[in-house]
Amino acid sequence: MRRLKLTIAYRGTAYHGFQVQQNALTVAEVFQDAVESVFGQRYDIKGCSRTDSGVHARGFVLSMDIAEAIPCPNIIKALNHRLPGDIAVLDCQEAEQGFHPRYSATGKRYLYRIWNAPQRNPFLQDTALHQPRPLDAELMNTAARHFLGSHDFSAFCAAGGSVQDHRRTITQCGVCRRGELVEISITGNGFLYNMVRIIAGTLMEVSLGRLTPEDIPLIIESRDRSRAGATAPAHGLFLDCVFYD
Amino acid sequence: MRRLKLTIAYRGTAYHGFQVQQNALTVAEVFQDAVESVFGQRYDIKGCSRTDSGVHARGFVLSMDIAEAIPCPNIIKALNHRLPGDIAVLDCQEAEQGFHPRYSATGKRYLYRIWNAPQRNPFLQDTALHQPRPLDAELMNTAARHFLGSHDFSAFCAAGGSVQDHRRTITQCGVCRRGELVEISITGNGFLYNMVRIIAGTLMEVSLGRLTPEDIPLIIESRDRSRAGATAPAHGLFLDCVFYD
Repeated sequence: MRRLKLTIAYRGTAYHGFQVQQNALTVAEVFQDAVESVFGQRYDIKGCSRTDSGVHARGFVLSMDIAEAIPCPNIIKALNHRLPGDIAVLDCQEAEQGFHPRYSATGKRYLYRIWNAPQRNPFLQDTALHQPRPLDAELMNTAARHFLGSHDFSAFCAAGGSVQDHRRTITQCGVCRRGELVEISITGNGFLYNMVRIIAGTLMEVSLGRLTPEDIPLIIESRDRSRAGATAPAHGLFLDCVFYD
Repeated sequence: MRRLKLTIAYRGTAYHGFQVQQNALTVAEVFQDAVESVFGQRYDIKGCSRTDSGVHARGFVLSMDIAEAIPCPNIIKALNHRLPGDIAVLDCQEAEQGFHPRYSATGKRYLYRIWNAPQRNPFLQDTALHQPRPLDAELMNTAARHFLGSHDFSAFCAAGGSVQDHRRTITQCGVCRRGELVEISITGNGFLYNMVRIIAGTLMEVSLGRLTPEDIPLIIESRDRSRAGATAPAHGLFLDCVFYD
């Protein structure tokens, strides 16, 4: 069997996240249907992450073991031909046998996008949060720096996760403005359930004056979810990139 | 009665163009429903242009005569509250009694967007044409300059239009690349039926080697539709801006 590493992008609006679920359409299910239509059999796929309903991906990584000797460029073409327009295979590489999209990953980068203008943008309806009140991206960026480093991020973790260890390392966290779009980017070795969305919600509350940048280290230290900001909506979130050694 | 000039943006994917039609959902109909819900009566609206099914607008202008003294900012808010997320009112101004969005216009600018990368972009599925073969934006820009000036554009007009005079003046026509997006922009005093989409299709054929930049003036002169390129699909086209004195 060959192990393949595939990189896909998807617009998550129509899907209940990546991971297969009973009674809900997911990216994994639609992808497996395309695989079955290309290879004539239902190969198992493994993803780099679960994503929530409505969350998007620009560079989601998955693996698949196949028997066929079909060259990678042909696999990309055949899968894209069968997949719907809101999912695309961007890359396909041979992977080592030990490769696992989730356990081999050394880090991930997420983006959170905010359309910051008085009126909504019909072209970003499902792919950016609309915040009509003016945001101060520089102030948010100052606050963002306080997330850097290794911390117990319990204050930025939604209830319901099964993970015991809440310590994570953030290696990059920044906010920049491009015209009317405000983009939060955050890179780390791993993320707790809803962590990026809670960080995004907290950074917005700094800009809207309900918190100061100096509150961030105190909130982290408190490990108290109720002190951080609200969970920002799913539709502004993108899994941007997954890193491997 | 007050005459209002409203600027709206819409994602045209779900609509059969702007203009009201029997048995087909249009932007105008949905807009009039929102107007009725805000003002309690069905005010007539006049648009700056018909747009085809699937075509988008970033700055479509319409007018409406109303009796109420509601301030413009409140009208924007109330309409946006009732409109679906793929239509947004961006601006509302008092207009002179003689103002007509179409007949008072002195020019319009259109954009045609092409996603020029080997794999499709799930986020631009309905808002850019996907062309996997590499386009030479500089060569297209050289060809685009030949459209400047006043010409009989019969070679760039789809059959079925009712207009007799095919003479139009193009004041700007350019092509630029921004990463994997190639954008054609074109400004003129008026456009024939499908003219921008035929120009976009012709510029792509220049890049793909089926025509040269020097063919453009000959095609214009021929007034022969069959010598120009194919009509590019509707979903890459945006009415960008309408100009008034």
